[in-house]
Amino acid sequence: MADKGMVGASERLDMPFVGIPSFLRAPIHTNLDTLKAEIAVLGAPTDEGSPFKPGSRFGARAMREHSLRFVSGKTGYYDPQRGHRFLEREMNGAIVDVGDAAHLDYMPFVHGMFHTNMHAFRHIRKMSHVQSLTQVGIRSLRDSEVMHRDARADGNRIVTMEAFRHSGAQGVVDVLPRDAACYVSIDIDVLDLSLVPGCVSAEPDGMSYRELRDLLATIAAHTEVVGFDLVEINPLLDVATGVTAYLGAHTVLEFLGQICAQPRWSKAHG
Amino acid sequence: MADKGMVGASERLDMPFVGIPSFLRAPIHTNLDTLKAEIAVLGAPTDEGSPFKPGSRFGARAMREHSLRFVSGKTGYYDPQRGHRFLEREMNGAIVDVGDAAHLDYMPFVHGMFHTNMHAFRHIRKMSHVQSLTQVGIRSLRDSEVMHRDARADGNRIVTMEAFRHSGAQGVVDVLPRDAACYVSIDIDVLDLSLVPGCVSAEPDGMSYRELRDLLATIAAHTEVVGFDLVEINPLLDVATGVTAYLGAHTVLEFLGQICAQPRWSKAHG
Amino acid sequence: MADKGMVGASERLDMPFVGIPSFLRAPIHTNLDTLKAEIAVLGAPTDEGSPFKPGSRFGARAMREHSLRFVSGKTGYYDPQRGHRFLEREMNGAIVDVGDAAHLDYMPFVHGMFHTNMHAFRHIRKMSHVQSLTQVGIRSLRDSEVMHRDARADGNRIVTMEAFRHSGAQGVVDVLPRDAACYVSIDIDVLDLSLVPGCVSAEPDGMSYRELRDLLATIAAHTEVVGFDLVEINPLLDVATGVTAYLGAHTVLEFLGQICAQPRWSKAHG
Amino acid sequence: MADKGMVGASERLDMPFVGIPSFLRAPIHTNLDTLKAEIAVLGAPTDEGSPFKPGSRFGARAMREHSLRFVSGKTGYYDPQRGHRFLEREMNGAIVDVGDAAHLDYMPFVHGMFHTNMHAFRHIRKMSHVQSLTQVGIRSLRDSEVMHRDARADGNRIVTMEAFRHSGAQGVVDVLPRDAACYVSIDIDVLDLSLVPGCVSAEPDGMSYRELRDLLATIAAHTEVVGFDLVEINPLLDVATGVTAYLGAHTVLEFLGQICAQPRWSKAHG
Amino acid sequence: MADKGMVGASERLDMPFVGIPSFLRAPIHTNLDTLKAEIAVLGAPTDEGSPFKPGSRFGARAMREHSLRFVSGKTGYYDPQRGHRFLEREMNGAIVDVGDAAHLDYMPFVHGMFHTNMHAFRHIRKMSHVQSLTQVGIRSLRDSEVMHRDARADGNRIVTMEAFRHSGAQGVVDVLPRDAACYVSIDIDVLDLSLVPGCVSAEPDGMSYRELRDLLATIAAHTEVVGFDLVEINPLLDVATGVTAYLGAHTVLEFLGQICAQPRWSKAHG
Amino acid sequence: MADKGMVGASERLDMPFVGIPSFLRAPIHTNLDTLKAEIAVLGAPTDEGSPFKPGSRFGARAMREHSLRFVSGKTGYYDPQRGHRFLEREMNGAIVDVGDAAHLDYMPFVHGMFHTNMHAFRHIRKMSHVQSLTQVGIRSLRDSEVMHRDARADGNRIVTMEAFRHSGAQGVVDVLPRDAACYVSIDIDVLDLSLVPGCVSAEPDGMSYRELRDLLATIAAHTEVVGFDLVEINPLLDVATGVTAYLGAHTVLEFLGQICAQPRWSKAHG
Repeated sequence: MADKGMVGASERLDMPFVGIPSFLRAPIHTNLDTLKAEIAVLGAPTDEGSPFKPGSRFGARAMREHSLRFVSGKTGYYDPQRGHRFLEREMNGAIVDVGDAAHLDYMPFVHGMFHTNMHAFRHIRKMSHVQSLTQVGIRSLRDSEVMHRDARADGNRIVTMEAFRHSGAQGVVDVLPRDAACYVSIDIDVLDLSLVPGCVSAEPDGMSYRELRDLLATIAAHTEVVGFDLVEINPLLDVATGVTAYLGAHTVLEFLGQICAQPRWSKAHG
Repeated sequence: MADKGMVGASERLDMPFVGIPSFLRAPIHTNLDTLKAEIAVLGAPTDEGSPFKPGSRFGARAMREHSLRFVSGKTGYYDPQRGHRFLEREMNGAIVDVGDAAHLDYMPFVHGMFHTNMHAFRHIRKMSHVQSLTQVGIRSLRDSEVMHRDARADGNRIVTMEAFRHSGAQGVVDVLPRDAACYVSIDIDVLDLSLVPGCVSAEPDGMSYRELRDLLATIAAHTEVVGFDLVEINPLLDVATGVTAYLGAHTVLEFLGQICAQPRWSKAHG
Repeated sequence: MADKGMVGASERLDMPFVGIPSFLRAPIHTNLDTLKAEIAVLGAPTDEGSPFKPGSRFGARAMREHSLRFVSGKTGYYDPQRGHRFLEREMNGAIVDVGDAAHLDYMPFVHGMFHTNMHAFRHIRKMSHVQSLTQVGIRSLRDSEVMHRDARADGNRIVTMEAFRHSGAQGVVDVLPRDAACYVSIDIDVLDLSLVPGCVSAEPDGMSYRELRDLLATIAAHTEVVGFDLVEINPLLDVATGVTAYLGAHTVLEFLGQICAQPRWSKAHG
Repeated sequence: MADKGMVGASERLDMPFVGIPSFLRAPIHTNLDTLKAEIAVLGAPTDEGSPFKPGSRFGARAMREHSLRFVSGKTGYYDPQRGHRFLEREMNGAIVDVGDAAHLDYMPFVHGMFHTNMHAFRHIRKMSHVQSLTQVGIRSLRDSEVMHRDARADGNRIVTMEAFRHSGAQGVVDVLPRDAACYVSIDIDVLDLSLVPGCVSAEPDGMSYRELRDLLATIAAHTEVVGFDLVEINPLLDVATGVTAYLGAHTVLEFLGQICAQPRWSKAHG
Repeated sequence: MADKGMVGASERLDMPFVGIPSFLRAPIHTNLDTLKAEIAVLGAPTDEGSPFKPGSRFGARAMREHSLRFVSGKTGYYDPQRGHRFLEREMNGAIVDVGDAAHLDYMPFVHGMFHTNMHAFRHIRKMSHVQSLTQVGIRSLRDSEVMHRDARADGNRIVTMEAFRHSGAQGVVDVLPRDAACYVSIDIDVLDLSLVPGCVSAEPDGMSYRELRDLLATIAAHTEVVGFDLVEINPLLDVATGVTAYLGAHTVLEFLGQICAQPRWSKAHG
Repeated sequence: MADKGMVGASERLDMPFVGIPSFLRAPIHTNLDTLKAEIAVLGAPTDEGSPFKPGSRFGARAMREHSLRFVSGKTGYYDPQRGHRFLEREMNGAIVDVGDAAHLDYMPFVHGMFHTNMHAFRHIRKMSHVQSLTQVGIRSLRDSEVMHRDARADGNRIVTMEAFRHSGAQGVVDVLPRDAACYVSIDIDVLDLSLVPGCVSAEPDGMSYRELRDLLATIAAHTEVVGFDLVEINPLLDVATGVTAYLGAHTVLEFLGQICAQPRWSKAHG
């Protein structure tokens, strides 16, 4: 192989408990200066400032570990319900794991925004290249009225859980310009509390996994997703089977699959 | 401040992991002789006689801890889906935490009754001021036929889970006299097993949180709720994020919010 | 009692935490040569070859323990929603716990087959007395396309989760010959991830308990169930309340109840 | 085999995770009227009245499970440090597991007594056949001075941990009449806190396992041990490897080994 | 009682699982301006900057809870090994729980210093009223040589674990001026790893509890302890019996007992 | 750097929870054909055939994670008790992490052998290049007498725990030829049960960490250690702080430190 910077493990026993876990067993390439990849996976291990029980700093490591469960003996993943193989080309070299951030300044540009955490987004909203911010699945009783009022005053769009159930995924994206560059931030607490025992900020009456999956697929079809993150997985507090981290890795995989299955992706990356 | 019996913590760092936890950071006032409060919160830490895994004696303490997650930096709580602030006046002095019972003889008078635990209610049904008993969400295969038959023979009304799905919350209260004094006992196992991993008696095919919330809101509107309790939360066995205790505190908060949002409450407490 | 080989515990305190746990407190009879029983319960404690986190070898023991929660003070179990007592005669002597296998060669003959684990069934499909194989609830992204294609090429019928939602339980059994001998293998991961925190292979977007219960009841009515197993419960990793093992025991109990409530069973066993 | 009341599992796979766990895989014989055994093992699953975290009601079941780790492929156990096999005859039929008590009135007569729990022993001390009571390893700061003073006033002998370190095991038994009938109650919290993570009442500065083992061996040599119990193991709170339950089973095994290795035992039981 | 700011719970059931937990059930008095107390207990719930697994922010709350185990039915605690009751007067009103810090600037003046955490002490060493700093029990391989060299260059005295075993407690205090004001910071990781499963920074080959207890008693006798803290207890990661938090509360209790048993304390506080 | 096969993370935030964990953050180089390293670290993730609770297949991964705690901000590790820095040169490039085995046939040649697991060594003893086998710390009551007798009959030397306490580390090595090539297999259950809560086969009355450390140091000085392994760490069952995995990494680090501090190592590797 030409690029010696890549590390593979294909010649070893291909089980999820084997090997040093990079995301989807992608090659590890921590030197960003020499990085050439269509898709770069970056961990951001921090939970400083967490308001209750900490530990999500270990979230990226746990999702890497659970991602290995999707790769044994194959490239890409097969969805038996759609009868289609996804990420076949991408999981064969186009994805690179760049490790974890030394500091957290790799944030790409952001246009649309889907998130439940209002606090951080007050600053983002002010950036010049950000045209609009949409938050979906809002329902927590823990945030103050002021925070909600300010968010709306800043021009953010808030789609509560009940509004989402009424409008559906299509209703969320219909007001966004088609093919706009869009950054998506997934707070795993958008899912119902019963699905994410290892998420400290979990709330009842959230989305089913299918609702989240379909929302992400709809976004991927309507806009050009230029990046996304997934936060709030706390492996220290997860159940022992690690279902929350698994569901996190599952969500990343399917969203990636949807993004790369779009014609605009094929056109760009052949 | 005039009343030195009250203890506040408002001048400290307002995070859920800070401070000695009273319910919703309400003042602690354990002397019942001098108690003046619209709403008194009392813990009843006991699990003697529990049929399988014990530990719910720590339930009240855990719900107090999780209740702190609703109070940081504000009075009352804001429901973004209804666009309304609840308990604003009440969380500003009307609620008092009176600690835990020395013994368990504080039971207020009881008219209507919503519960799944049939055993204890055979005695309650016989009290002269109790006019009717309704049990909602019944579905467990662990109770004997005799218990069910006796409950019906005593004149109790049993609304099984399937019957509840058919009649809805309104069907439950329609047979109760409007504005009757009503005591509500919430066994958290009325919720689906997936929502309450820290409830030993959890059963599949139970209510969603939304179904329980709406049932409680309907009861609060139709009857005059004079008291309520919430049982069967076992923090020793809960998942590490404490979702069962959190959901318990969440339920208490929302039910309290509904009770205090009724015109009859405003009229009485102005 | 004539048969001294049976061990009962009826004279002791009848609580789930009391006694050496056999399934439903059935008599223990480990000598298969002298076994006379309508229903024999056999554990198969193995997890060799498990692809991720092991521990399901303790599944049978945990389900035995949780099964004791259904038997206190009664024979049979009462379903308050159907208003009917099940297994009254069978739990009074017709069920025997034969312990665990020394080796795993007790597999009875198999005609219809409902399962999600494709790998093991490639060999079963080839057996001469096996006429067809149906797999229900398939949705995992972790299996390869080849495995799915081969399963279909072998003549297996695959009912994905979405197809099941569309066809319903009746659609699953309609293509099977009525009253055909049928062996059912229940992988507990057919249930939604939120219901089975102690199942390593759990997946989102699975069946609710009610969907599984109704499917099993439909199978019991349509075919002659000659045996069944339940796999993938891992008590080492379950939450501390043991809800996954409880749900496993619950499923076995209800399926057994349905099988024995059929006219064909009454005719055979009086 | 003549006695059909006995249930064996010798023909199955002989691993600790296999089979319905009786103590040391001894035959189960729950009918006390027909019981004939040199050594009867009885569980007493209760934790009512426990002062802090409950769960020791599951202690007997957990010790049975861990006892299976000593029996695979052999009778008796071999101590490589003494170069001697113990319980070879006894583990071949002389031990019977009689299940758990329905109620707790099986207490045999008691002469000497070694225990840390003072409360229960105030009543025992008054029994006419009890000549003296000795408590060893006392060090907890949680008991009141009154309790200690009363115990001494009743004529009990208290050997604190420091006194035990000074006198040694021999000093404990020297004041007891040689060959006196002696009942021993082992509270596992006599061991150092570091050894018993699953014991709620654990205290620092306790005995090492070797000190306890040697004390028990010394008692077995000096007196005629007519019965013993072991309490305070809480499997609900133990670490996941179950070391506290294992150490409990280990202690029972070694004490039983010492008792049966005495000449007076061989004389009585051949 | 004159001071209504005090809240007692003496009239309730006196069990550790009952009541809102203040340290040793001391009255809660969070208003520092009106505080009058010989001994004030202050929590400092923070773990920001923790280098590995976080969660010690819950340490103070857990120690408060475990401290309740020492107070049922009595004032003061009785040490059966010394035959003496400690803190009898102090636990009857002289101790006050002042809750948790809003911020962490309550640090009293510091003269001697016993600690293992070198980093924070580089700043303390420079304070004008600090005459010397002694660190005892140092053994971790995780600190850098530079840190050790700098500490020594700053004039700090480092007593490694091996040196402590050689010199004993008396050797530690002999070089300190008798009756000097001394502040003691106890990092619970000074204890052996086997004693503190809920301490993330635990190290093997540490002190036994007896060694720590005797060291603290020796310091209390030799110097005038003007304050002390105890850090690094992580209840989120502790074993389920909470032995690390219990040992923390135990250590605080005994150190307090030793300090108040000194003649200089009696003289000052009568 | 010439060798692009090496992956470093030195430019990132240097905390143990950051980055994809290789042992001691050594470069990952999974291609054994091109491997050039003084010290190669290889994981062997298997627990097939484990006799009780499985999960040690995750042991290597957990030790890698805990090894990161020794490397932040420095090369080598500093032992404050010896006042010496170890592995300074080696941790700067001489150690390579080669990932996990595909299969387990990398076993180097073996002369001396220190281990507690007798079963596997019956085959090793027969290999022509193996001159002697010594097992140290033997004390388990779970092995059969036959196994011990056969081991001795094969010419193995067994040093029980009591014998080790009598002879000391020097007594163990004195009978081995000085400078003989020696392979050491460390079963972590040689340590006392209180130190290794995450080791399923833990036994009471084992070595303190200091005893093990000194034994390994003595072996490193007396013989030429050509390889070593460390087994029986089960992170699935470890306490949440991971002390067993930490102690495993700690042991590997110190043994490596001792081996590389020998004059024979400096001579060979300069």
